[in-house]
Amino acid sequence: MHQFAMPVRVYVEDTDAGGIVYYVNYLKYMERARTEWFRERGYEKPAMFRDNLMFVVHSLNISYRRPARLDDLLEVTAAVVRTGRTYFEMDQQVVRGDERICVARVKVACVSRDDMKPAAIPDDVRAAALAADRQERSVV
Amino acid sequence: MHQFAMPVRVYVEDTDAGGIVYYVNYLKYMERARTEWFRERGYEKPAMFRDNLMFVVHSLNISYRRPARLDDLLEVTAAVVRTGRTYFEMDQQVVRGDERICVARVKVACVSRDDMKPAAIPDDVRAAALAADRQERSVV
Amino acid sequence: MHQFAMPVRVYVEDTDAGGIVYYVNYLKYMERARTEWFRERGYEKPAMFRDNLMFVVHSLNISYRRPARLDDLLEVTAAVVRTGRTYFEMDQQVVRGDERICVARVKVACVSRDDMKPAAIPDDVRAAALAADRQERSVV
Amino acid sequence: MHQFAMPVRVYVEDTDAGGIVYYVNYLKYMERARTEWFRERGYEKPAMFRDNLMFVVHSLNISYRRPARLDDLLEVTAAVVRTGRTYFEMDQQVVRGDERICVARVKVACVSRDDMKPAAIPDDVRAAALAADRQERSVV
Repeated sequence: MHQFAMPVRVYVEDTDAGGIVYYVNYLKYMERARTEWFRERGYEKPAMFRDNLMFVVHSLNISYRRPARLDDLLEVTAAVVRTGRTYFEMDQQVVRGDERICVARVKVACVSRDDMKPAAIPDDVRAAALAADRQERSVV
Repeated sequence: MHQFAMPVRVYVEDTDAGGIVYYVNYLKYMERARTEWFRERGYEKPAMFRDNLMFVVHSLNISYRRPARLDDLLEVTAAVVRTGRTYFEMDQQVVRGDERICVARVKVACVSRDDMKPAAIPDDVRAAALAADRQERSVV
Repeated sequence: MHQFAMPVRVYVEDTDAGGIVYYVNYLKYMERARTEWFRERGYEKPAMFRDNLMFVVHSLNISYRRPARLDDLLEVTAAVVRTGRTYFEMDQQVVRGDERICVARVKVACVSRDDMKPAAIPDDVRAAALAADRQERSVV
Repeated sequence: MHQFAMPVRVYVEDTDAGGIVYYVNYLKYMERARTEWFRERGYEKPAMFRDNLMFVVHSLNISYRRPARLDDLLEVTAAVVRTGRTYFEMDQQVVRGDERICVARVKVACVSRDDMKPAAIPDDVRAAALAADRQERSVV
């Protein structure tokens, strides 16, 4: 399956005293990729959405395989692997060439901004996401 | 089971444009709690350890229940729930009074600083951790 | 002159690949101290204020003297050194025992949340701040 | 004078509960620009340098003009305005189209990694920086 991918450079701000990328910061990289994945589909500011809706991270798991270091040029991927009425799940990876740095499954929920309760993902958003994914798959 | 707990105040640095704590930052709070849990057992700088060893996060999962906000006074807990030769697993929570903000399971691995390969946890560290946990349990 | 001070522990999140506290993060410590200084005077959430006002950093300068390291227990100070109709200036330091880690002058402005234009600091806030400062000075 | 410039997108990680970019984070943007300015001149990892030297921020001042917001596409500039034996000073700006978001003067010092004392900037680094700057100026 084709995956959306964007490059990320490791700067000093991302590292820690162990000389490696601080493990928490990979989640920032992954959110950047989700944001650009949304933008590519025509949606900006997914975290601050129209219609009083916004997307928030519901849960995630992440596994760290090997460390990235200062100045590394990484690639961060995002691919929808499951969708529900109020959420979707993405597989995300941070890679350096052929090496996997870390892999994650992130469940993103659509919620009402007023009460933070689950809300249905708007039809056009779901359609755009699925269409784009089909297109990417057909290319591959 | 009694759990180690420490208070954490939410400052502006922790929040995001959604008006809530940026979801990634709870993992910083949890690491602070793991660090203080170690310190209470007599071990400082667990991430930069003696004998060419260090503790790193191997994997984790986290589930977000409700948002915390600017100025909230939270409590972060840490409790060992499983130990192996080269790792241990902790249950961690961020709570605000009776409300659970998020809950996580974090697997921390002992690795060699040279090659980042798994290494046995030193006996005294394991003993101190287990003894302390037993003591806490017996108190409760 | 007596200064408000609060302790800050250096965690992994604060460090960088140079093995020291990432220089940007001292500004987070300083904001924590300004927030607690406000809280001590009876004002919470100074960055998200009542009456459609908020306090923002207008400008600052900071000078780094020596590095702090993982696990250091630091102290961060805050003292008002000048007040105007719409702003006040604070001297802030991060120290480790007798050593000065960094020193800063921070100009904090009161602005309208709507248009971010300068706005007069409410009288009671100014009075509380000045009274508290006088009291502290008289104690010393 | 021509200036080095690089684009920076504002992600959720960069914002705070005020709905704007957290003021501390502009300094991260500025360091990214300094790093790329170095890289363009053939030097990688300037913060973790060869010969037991590294570059650290000695002092800085920054003035905030107007806020940047989630999803903004900003540009960050860097230009050397003064050089000494052991340091150089850069003017840096964050702009959004014609608007200046913030402006800073940053003094970067070359120090020995062992004792963090000032050390002479290697000749080739100084030459490369100055040559590149002359070239840029002559182009304009």
